[in-house]
Amino acid sequence: MAALCQQVAFTQAKPNVFAARKGQRSARVAVKVQAALAAENYITEVPESLLRPGIDDPNSMRGRFEKMIRGIQSQVCSAIEEVDGNTFRQDAWTRPGGGGGITRVMQEGNVWEKAGVAVSVVYGTMPAEAYRVAVGKDIPFDREDRVPFFAAGISSVMHPWNPHCPTMHFNYRYFETEDWKGIPGQWWFGGGTDITPNYIVEEDMKHFHGVYKAVCDRHDPTWYEKMKHDCDDYFTITHRGETRGLGGIIYEDLNDRDKEKIFAFATDAANHIVESYVPIIKKHKNDPYSPRQKEWQQIRRGRYTEFNLVYDRGTIFGLKTGGRIESILMSLPLTASWRYDYQVDPQGPEQKFLDAVRNPHAVNWV
Amino acid sequence: MAALCQQVAFTQAKPNVFAARKGQRSARVAVKVQAALAAENYITEVPESLLRPGIDDPNSMRGRFEKMIRGIQSQVCSAIEEVDGNTFRQDAWTRPGGGGGITRVMQEGNVWEKAGVAVSVVYGTMPAEAYRVAVGKDIPFDREDRVPFFAAGISSVMHPWNPHCPTMHFNYRYFETEDWKGIPGQWWFGGGTDITPNYIVEEDMKHFHGVYKAVCDRHDPTWYEKMKHDCDDYFTITHRGETRGLGGIIYEDLNDRDKEKIFAFATDAANHIVESYVPIIKKHKNDPYSPRQKEWQQIRRGRYTEFNLVYDRGTIFGLKTGGRIESILMSLPLTASWRYDYQVDPQGPEQKFLDAVRNPHAVNWV
Repeated sequence: MAALCQQVAFTQAKPNVFAARKGQRSARVAVKVQAALAAENYITEVPESLLRPGIDDPNSMRGRFEKMIRGIQSQVCSAIEEVDGNTFRQDAWTRPGGGGGITRVMQEGNVWEKAGVAVSVVYGTMPAEAYRVAVGKDIPFDREDRVPFFAAGISSVMHPWNPHCPTMHFNYRYFETEDWKGIPGQWWFGGGTDITPNYIVEEDMKHFHGVYKAVCDRHDPTWYEKMKHDCDDYFTITHRGETRGLGGIIYEDLNDRDKEKIFAFATDAANHIVESYVPIIKKHKNDPYSPRQKEWQQIRRGRYTEFNLVYDRGTIFGLKTGGRIESILMSLPLTASWRYDYQVDPQGPEQKFLDAVRNPHAVNWV
Repeated sequence: MAALCQQVAFTQAKPNVFAARKGQRSARVAVKVQAALAAENYITEVPESLLRPGIDDPNSMRGRFEKMIRGIQSQVCSAIEEVDGNTFRQDAWTRPGGGGGITRVMQEGNVWEKAGVAVSVVYGTMPAEAYRVAVGKDIPFDREDRVPFFAAGISSVMHPWNPHCPTMHFNYRYFETEDWKGIPGQWWFGGGTDITPNYIVEEDMKHFHGVYKAVCDRHDPTWYEKMKHDCDDYFTITHRGETRGLGGIIYEDLNDRDKEKIFAFATDAANHIVESYVPIIKKHKNDPYSPRQKEWQQIRRGRYTEFNLVYDRGTIFGLKTGGRIESILMSLPLTASWRYDYQVDPQGPEQKFLDAVRNPHAVNWV
């Protein structure tokens, strides 16, 4: 359920719950969404598809996107299991009205202290007002009008033990509304992959960003620069004046060209998660480290927690709409630390890291 | 600065930044408050008073409240130092327009892993719209009108190492506006003390709540019941369906009787912090504990972090208005943990604790 809510969050949150930031009502909307999505049935046999049998066409974008993200879930979990030596546990559920979710988590592995990959498929209705904001058209509507939507997505966070191994996060999602008041159904894609090391290893960042630049360049030569910039903006911990990590790419509400072209891009990006991340882990998983380096990792994990609980739209939306808490907060680190007035050596690598996260737009890895 | 902002948060946040919850604009207000309060000068010699010399009467409520909370800061820190054997460090600053703050923190002591007590005195201006909401009168105002205010407060969190020793939090504050548009200056008091153990020790809770019931009863026999109820409501982690801890008292926007009477109550309550808390620590500081009990403490510290970052008005206001981060987040535990789908023994003391925090209104300690 949480993954569902996270999913919905990424797609409908901006015009909806987070409209509160722009001074619109939020709590009431959240409660309504909650009521619409709350029911869930845990299942042990995971069906081949979470779509509504006989209603949704498996060859539609809904079906193809679900198939893609479920393939990515398997691909990523297998690659992580191979490096770690431990296996993911799986929790799955369906919802009475259709849809469902599959959360896979590995905790206290050999390499990762916590790694989670969650897939969800949601059918719901959104308030007409939120829809109007999203579409950007002045549609007349009644106060209680609701617009049917579909959302499917995958999201993941991986926290390794070793402070020289970066944390990695990704999510890829697809959102559709149905035809409503004479307006044809709308659709958007969103997603991205980003990396959060504790130290700068330039070669690794060139590799990670290089993989995503190559992916972007295959689809649109302007995308990498824009998506890298937007990623740094999104993952900013405003009160610290720094980003959570060293970025990657992010795209939101993407629907400016042929749907097939964006789907092809999303698929390509998702298919390069393993290549962008796993070699860095293989390289560093046995690096020796000092207690001071572990302490610094824990401080950065505290920052990660601050970002996710204070700013992350998916997390906040999930929490406020009664999502499955365990799936939503699987993104939090196993452990984190807050030390009063923590100081780093101004000549040391921790300071170099801080310089980078405080000036993210100044740093170009590729 | 952070303590200043926390202070302001507790007093003006409800009608102001947090009006966003009710559908009003917030970001713009926050930016304005930030601009008004951001400047600060660190000082090594702490003046006897943080009031504006020659402008504020030391015998006014401003002066008397400042004196009271600074006395409480000394009293509490001394009592904690005596039990712990370590001393608090002190960071102090003044602001060019008057006011300032004194933050005292003890980290990695013998008994407490982190303990902080912060005093602040703030002069600022608040948007007229927020003022109108607070006063509850339909005052005509211009868009850019701002109302001068004064706020003074003390806030504190103490996290012990031993899982059998509770975390304790308190804050006491006084807020005034100046005469404006023919309306005489307004004032409010707010505050409270609450306790967050990891296990229920009934005798200890009877002691803690008993001390505060006795304090309340000396001033108004209806207060303890109301303030205990409001405290449980305030410290609810909504997405978990549980309170942060086992409550205490809280009062907000209190101005329903003679100012002297409320000041006398606030002083009485603040003067009983040590008596309500320190005996519990002395009793348990050397209790043996298992790794499993330490793990449970860390899970509860995770919940504490969730409450403070997601719901606490003072914290959120401070973060969003550019307060001194180190003072605001001194309330976070030194370490916290999040485990996926953490399960407790349904017959064990952890479950008993969860039953209590999930039904706070059902539990009456005294």
